Amino acid sequence: MARFLKSRAKAKGAAPGSLIFMGYQKMEATKIHLIKFNTDQSSEHEFSDIGEALKAIDKKQINWLNIDGIHEAEIIKQVGNHFNISFLGLESVLNTGQRSKYFEDEEAIIVISKAVYYHKEESKISVEQISFILLDKVVISFQEKTGDHFNPVRSRIRNNVGKIRKSQADYLLYALMDTLVDNYLINLEQLGNQIESVEDKLSNPQKELSNLLFHYKTEISYFRKTIRPLKEVLIRLLRSKTEMIHPESIPYYQELYDLVEQSIDAVENYFGMTNDLLNLYNTNVSNKANEVMKVLTIFASIFIPLTFIAGIYGTNFEYVPELQFKNAYFVMWGVMFSVAGVMLYFFKRHKWF
Amino acid sequence: MARFLKSRAKAKGAAPGSLIFMGYQKMEATKIHLIKFNTDQSSEHEFSDIGEALKAIDKKQINWLNIDGIHEAEIIKQVGNHFNISFLGLESVLNTGQRSKYFEDEEAIIVISKAVYYHKEESKISVEQISFILLDKVVISFQEKTGDHFNPVRSRIRNNVGKIRKSQADYLLYALMDTLVDNYLINLEQLGNQIESVEDKLSNPQKELSNLLFHYKTEISYFRKTIRPLKEVLIRLLRSKTEMIHPESIPYYQELYDLVEQSIDAVENYFGMTNDLLNLYNTNVSNKANEVMKVLTIFASIFIPLTFIAGIYGTNFEYVPELQFKNAYFVMWGVMFSVAGVMLYFFKRHKWF
Amino acid sequence: MARFLKSRAKAKGAAPGSLIFMGYQKMEATKIHLIKFNTDQSSEHEFSDIGEALKAIDKKQINWLNIDGIHEAEIIKQVGNHFNISFLGLESVLNTGQRSKYFEDEEAIIVISKAVYYHKEESKISVEQISFILLDKVVISFQEKTGDHFNPVRSRIRNNVGKIRKSQADYLLYALMDTLVDNYLINLEQLGNQIESVEDKLSNPQKELSNLLFHYKTEISYFRKTIRPLKEVLIRLLRSKTEMIHPESIPYYQELYDLVEQSIDAVENYFGMTNDLLNLYNTNVSNKANEVMKVLTIFASIFIPLTFIAGIYGTNFEYVPELQFKNAYFVMWGVMFSVAGVMLYFFKRHKWF
Amino acid sequence: MARFLKSRAKAKGAAPGSLIFMGYQKMEATKIHLIKFNTDQSSEHEFSDIGEALKAIDKKQINWLNIDGIHEAEIIKQVGNHFNISFLGLESVLNTGQRSKYFEDEEAIIVISKAVYYHKEESKISVEQISFILLDKVVISFQEKTGDHFNPVRSRIRNNVGKIRKSQADYLLYALMDTLVDNYLINLEQLGNQIESVEDKLSNPQKELSNLLFHYKTEISYFRKTIRPLKEVLIRLLRSKTEMIHPESIPYYQELYDLVEQSIDAVENYFGMTNDLLNLYNTNVSNKANEVMKVLTIFASIFIPLTFIAGIYGTNFEYVPELQFKNAYFVMWGVMFSVAGVMLYFFKRHKWF
Amino acid sequence: MARFLKSRAKAKGAAPGSLIFMGYQKMEATKIHLIKFNTDQSSEHEFSDIGEALKAIDKKQINWLNIDGIHEAEIIKQVGNHFNISFLGLESVLNTGQRSKYFEDEEAIIVISKAVYYHKEESKISVEQISFILLDKVVISFQEKTGDHFNPVRSRIRNNVGKIRKSQADYLLYALMDTLVDNYLINLEQLGNQIESVEDKLSNPQKELSNLLFHYKTEISYFRKTIRPLKEVLIRLLRSKTEMIHPESIPYYQELYDLVEQSIDAVENYFGMTNDLLNLYNTNVSNKANEVMKVLTIFASIFIPLTFIAGIYGTNFEYVPELQFKNAYFVMWGVMFSVAGVMLYFFKRHKWF
Repeated sequence: MARFLKSRAKAKGAAPGSLIFMGYQKMEATKIHLIKFNTDQSSEHEFSDIGEALKAIDKKQINWLNIDGIHEAEIIKQVGNHFNISFLGLESVLNTGQRSKYFEDEEAIIVISKAVYYHKEESKISVEQISFILLDKVVISFQEKTGDHFNPVRSRIRNNVGKIRKSQADYLLYALMDTLVDNYLINLEQLGNQIESVEDKLSNPQKELSNLLFHYKTEISYFRKTIRPLKEVLIRLLRSKTEMIHPESIPYYQELYDLVEQSIDAVENYFGMTNDLLNLYNTNVSNKANEVMKVLTIFASIFIPLTFIAGIYGTNFEYVPELQFKNAYFVMWGVMFSVAGVMLYFFKRHKWF
Repeated sequence: MARFLKSRAKAKGAAPGSLIFMGYQKMEATKIHLIKFNTDQSSEHEFSDIGEALKAIDKKQINWLNIDGIHEAEIIKQVGNHFNISFLGLESVLNTGQRSKYFEDEEAIIVISKAVYYHKEESKISVEQISFILLDKVVISFQEKTGDHFNPVRSRIRNNVGKIRKSQADYLLYALMDTLVDNYLINLEQLGNQIESVEDKLSNPQKELSNLLFHYKTEISYFRKTIRPLKEVLIRLLRSKTEMIHPESIPYYQELYDLVEQSIDAVENYFGMTNDLLNLYNTNVSNKANEVMKVLTIFASIFIPLTFIAGIYGTNFEYVPELQFKNAYFVMWGVMFSVAGVMLYFFKRHKWF
Repeated sequence: MARFLKSRAKAKGAAPGSLIFMGYQKMEATKIHLIKFNTDQSSEHEFSDIGEALKAIDKKQINWLNIDGIHEAEIIKQVGNHFNISFLGLESVLNTGQRSKYFEDEEAIIVISKAVYYHKEESKISVEQISFILLDKVVISFQEKTGDHFNPVRSRIRNNVGKIRKSQADYLLYALMDTLVDNYLINLEQLGNQIESVEDKLSNPQKELSNLLFHYKTEISYFRKTIRPLKEVLIRLLRSKTEMIHPESIPYYQELYDLVEQSIDAVENYFGMTNDLLNLYNTNVSNKANEVMKVLTIFASIFIPLTFIAGIYGTNFEYVPELQFKNAYFVMWGVMFSVAGVMLYFFKRHKWF
Repeated sequence: MARFLKSRAKAKGAAPGSLIFMGYQKMEATKIHLIKFNTDQSSEHEFSDIGEALKAIDKKQINWLNIDGIHEAEIIKQVGNHFNISFLGLESVLNTGQRSKYFEDEEAIIVISKAVYYHKEESKISVEQISFILLDKVVISFQEKTGDHFNPVRSRIRNNVGKIRKSQADYLLYALMDTLVDNYLINLEQLGNQIESVEDKLSNPQKELSNLLFHYKTEISYFRKTIRPLKEVLIRLLRSKTEMIHPESIPYYQELYDLVEQSIDAVENYFGMTNDLLNLYNTNVSNKANEVMKVLTIFASIFIPLTFIAGIYGTNFEYVPELQFKNAYFVMWGVMFSVAGVMLYFFKRHKWF
Repeated sequence: MARFLKSRAKAKGAAPGSLIFMGYQKMEATKIHLIKFNTDQSSEHEFSDIGEALKAIDKKQINWLNIDGIHEAEIIKQVGNHFNISFLGLESVLNTGQRSKYFEDEEAIIVISKAVYYHKEESKISVEQISFILLDKVVISFQEKTGDHFNPVRSRIRNNVGKIRKSQADYLLYALMDTLVDNYLINLEQLGNQIESVEDKLSNPQKELSNLLFHYKTEISYFRKTIRPLKEVLIRLLRSKTEMIHPESIPYYQELYDLVEQSIDAVENYFGMTNDLLNLYNTNVSNKANEVMKVLTIFASIFIPLTFIAGIYGTNFEYVPELQFKNAYFVMWGVMFSVAGVMLYFFKRHKWF
């Protein structure tokens, strides 16, 4: 499967703006969860029918509607009709093969974003699309799979921790997105630790290491490609003149933007580090080759001349004067030791060992 | 033929603005196809004469005039005269060796764009120029060859699928361009799959692989160079104050722009990947060389000293004391095994095998 | 000679703004050629004296004064005095060692640009400075050498082809510059073809090839450095509020700008390609080295042990039991074949050949 | 530990804006030091309780409150409450794992910055977060550890050196930040000296050197990543319309900005230098390998043929004519010397030694 | 000494804005030279006391005060007091370890710039700080050492060449800066020539060459780092709304800006060229290694099998049938020649020589 591209091929020929689910078909049923809260109280509700969920929304409180499993186009259609949302932004909620995006009209903001998991055992990144619709007093979140990203936010609502129960829907949206970006940093740290741990193994450059580093580099590229567009999303949101985001929430989104920048920074640094490690790997391979060659050269350069000398006195010429000399054999050994000694001295002086 | 440059040489000396076909001469005859439609109905007509086709245009409906094979300058000239279009933009329709472009005057928009095919068997990109003229109630599309790019749009018109029959000419132009850009992603995915499949073959770095990777890199560069200028075209279109594009179509063009950005993103990622694969290839070549050298060194370092020892006792000196010793031959074997053992231990300890 | 820098050293100490010719002294005499034309007629005149040429200018027609050989500072001085042009721009006409430039005052536009030739046989780029002064009804062009760049324009004027006879001086300037930029593409295509032809020769990486590629890379860099500043010239011209360029000429200059961008694009692509080819060359050298080493290793690893065996039985020990065995010689051959066979199997299994 | 990322994991699930210390727990107690000064006098006070320190602030003088050890969230909370500072900026004071930052509201400016130390012996960078709050007549500085960064400023206040006693709180903030940036340059110079000293050792490329260079490169990257965001902080501060920074202080902050740019420049240069040194290292390794191979080739190419010749006359054929020739042995030596001589001449001519 | 960083360490702890000389202490005494001129006349004066020099300034003429040797802080202090110049800009005049800078207030412009020398024999760049203060009718120039940079300007004043005597102080400043930038190009050309001359020596890649190229690259980086900030200085000057620079001087400063851009361009090109040469060097080293290995392989592959054959017939087996054959010796030679011939044919066919 092409890593850097989820196919739009399925929808080829479909009219633009038509609502067709274009991610990988998931088997699980869609789960609908509604939390209503205000400063004083919070209540939670499960629904299996989107229509009832929409009816249960209470505009006197803040409503957070979380929909797990977005493969039923019908549900999104009903949401769109209910809130009168432009179809183009909704199409993006269904098409999980695109980049993070920001849509805005007078009454709704749609944010398409990505959750990233790093599966430590397989050293693999997986990406899930998480979409948000911000409406007056309502936040709707769509997840590809049933996940537990937002549990920290849920528990803050339940236990009335922090500002969340006292704030508007735009703060809730911030809190949810903040959870995602926090996750980037946590997953990145794990990937980073694995990359850094390669350094120690490089002194003995095994073939597997280069494949591993290449693999990390691909994952890092994928990570980068995934989180980079979120920066643009936040720039558009911060520059927007929408009244959906209240002035007192702006510093929080600004802070979120800084966090995204920090993530991108870290990704770039790890990307550079894999490059450096690959170079170091190559350098170590060259060093190793050099060592091997030195061993060969030392052995060959010493013993080939000696073998030659021995060869000379193995010839069967009728008259080889040295052969008759008394002790010639020992003289030969002496000469051989001298030759070997000179060679070793040469190699030593040139710091070959 | 120079890949990155289609010659303007043919037209050298021609007056700028003169209408001369500068692509590669195609043999097929020009085909003219007109679709007229409104919310209620659609009708299709074939013409062999451009004059009649122009007469058949009905300004009470939306008219889509598709002209396959643009090598007859005369046809374009008549179109230009009929609609009173500035010659400079029309020249670009004929000159297929240029980049995607955007022209605009008060009554017409001309978009020069490119269709890209990836021929899987030959692993080669081919590019065709597709030009569009948007006029009041009329879209004219020019294709270099008779192709079937626009069949999905045609069938949406015939079967009244989506918004197309209810919309204006600017939406039709969007739908046609969207088909082209969708095609980028589909072709890119195929090329991408082939590139990714190289990774598995890299463990045994054959010479052909480096040529293949180089070839992919060239194709990717060519792809990138081809689709990049379309981004600029859409920026100009989106920033333009023309009344030809209605406000309700702007989000669709914005969406198209995002799709082009996604394509460029993916191209860049595959470009980086070919680079990484080439580096990995080189690393594997070095690793292989290292292995080969280790084999040589192990054999040579063990057997050259042993041969030397044998050589010593092959000499014909009158007095070589060892030769007379009983069992000296077996002692020699013992010494030899010891030497070989020490060597093997040394290599083992240095993790040579 | 420093390729990337024509010396200003000659003029060191000269007052800025003084008119001194700073190119390489050319021997040929200056040639002055004047074409006067309007819609109805055109006439051509040769002069040897600049004073007379200036007097011959007829403000009721469009005048194109072409001056070949700009090494006589006196001529430019007279031109400057006659039309009252600021000295600073004129200095640039004389100083051929600078980048393309744009000067503008209320009554004159000066464009310094470059013509590029690719000498196919020597694979070398040469650059000539071409300067233009646009005045009311007058274009003056200065060429370093007597060349034939502008023959296509001349013949269009003579034969009244295209818009040129019907247009103003600003269109003439466009037509002249267009000829130069067209030339970039033609020369680039030739250089490009030569670069692409290297690919086929890379399978046998001769030493000369790397020098050739390095040479191409230097030429491409030089080409790039030469044509890049023209983009800025056209940006300044297009943004300028001068009344010298009429609104109806703007699209032509816009088109010229696109052409320059296309040239720069192509140069960048060829630059990238030389880099890729150099890398491929290095990869092929490594592959070759690997092959050589495999041959060596196969031969050495097979025959060194065999020679060792033979050496054993060449020793002169008194008691070597095998020597007395009947058929021991043939047994030795058998052992040797087995050893060689095992080795060959090992190399085969590791895909060494 | 992931170098490029201090974990936010600890705070996962915490409400954004909640005050939790997220650096590495330090054992030392918090130290609170207050200096009050004006043109005429200065006085210093130590506190163990933040409440008393806050009460001791005298708005008729300039107050500098330095808090060493920021791990007690309670202290920061009291500071925030006392001066009514928005919690979001304060959170950043506690969270030491982030980039340099700038916060501003109508009555306070918060600057999060970094001090960098280069530990020469271990060749390691360590980073400490230093935060500043600028209020009317008050500067509060927070340090992670008890350090002596600000002693020069302290002594200038005590001894009334320079403008500091005559200036407002914004000048004091500048003076403190200037001390940090000065420190960047000093530490960078030490790191730079170590990097430059590697060059001399490169002629004999030991394996340790490549690891050392890789290590320096990582440190330089870390340095760069740490100081780069401060540039943005100063841009925001300089562009801000706050009345907290008086016009007469702007040139000082501009100067500080230039100094930060100079630091970043120097970091980039050293980064480039480590890259170049790594390349030079690789080149030297290749050169060394070449030398080794030459030695091997010279020895092998000379002695292998000679050994072959000797081998020929060691054969036991019944009839080998040369063996009976008188002086054949000496002729063999002559042939051998000739062969060796020819080989040496060949190697000499090809400049092998 | 750290090349990319002149230490600010000396001034550590000094109050910002205090006037301390931070360059390397020069032994020579400060020289003060004043030229007064107007259209009609010019006069020159030497002073040893700055006070008298300042008194000698005549506001009815243009005054150029040149101060060689800026290590006496007292002199600069008096200049500052006399003209009432802000201390911050003056500090920069004294601190020679910084980048080119531009300061401006209502009555003075301070430009800190750099002169670059290329010492051809040692192939080393040296940099000197040259600062200028432009005041109404006065230009003050400060040089680190007594140099002769400005002799061309001096002689133009004396001999009334060009516009200088007819112009204001801002033109004089331009003329002085122009001399510096001209010098960049001249020195760059010399360095460039040396770099280009390396190319010819690359065919025999000596170890010294790689060190030389590395050295050139460092010098080029240093050059680049030195001249780049001047571009920014000129941008600030050109954008400034100061009345100190008259409109008629703007084109000259624009021209100067173009010259700086040209210098930076050339530096970048030479930087790229050193990179390319280093790569070519590495390629040549690989090619050389390949050649060496081919020689080794050819010799070893031919003679090792032959020696093996000879070894076979050197064995002392009782029964080796071939030994008794008549002419077996000559048959052996025949076999050997065949083997060698086959090998040579193989090597030839694979284009090994």
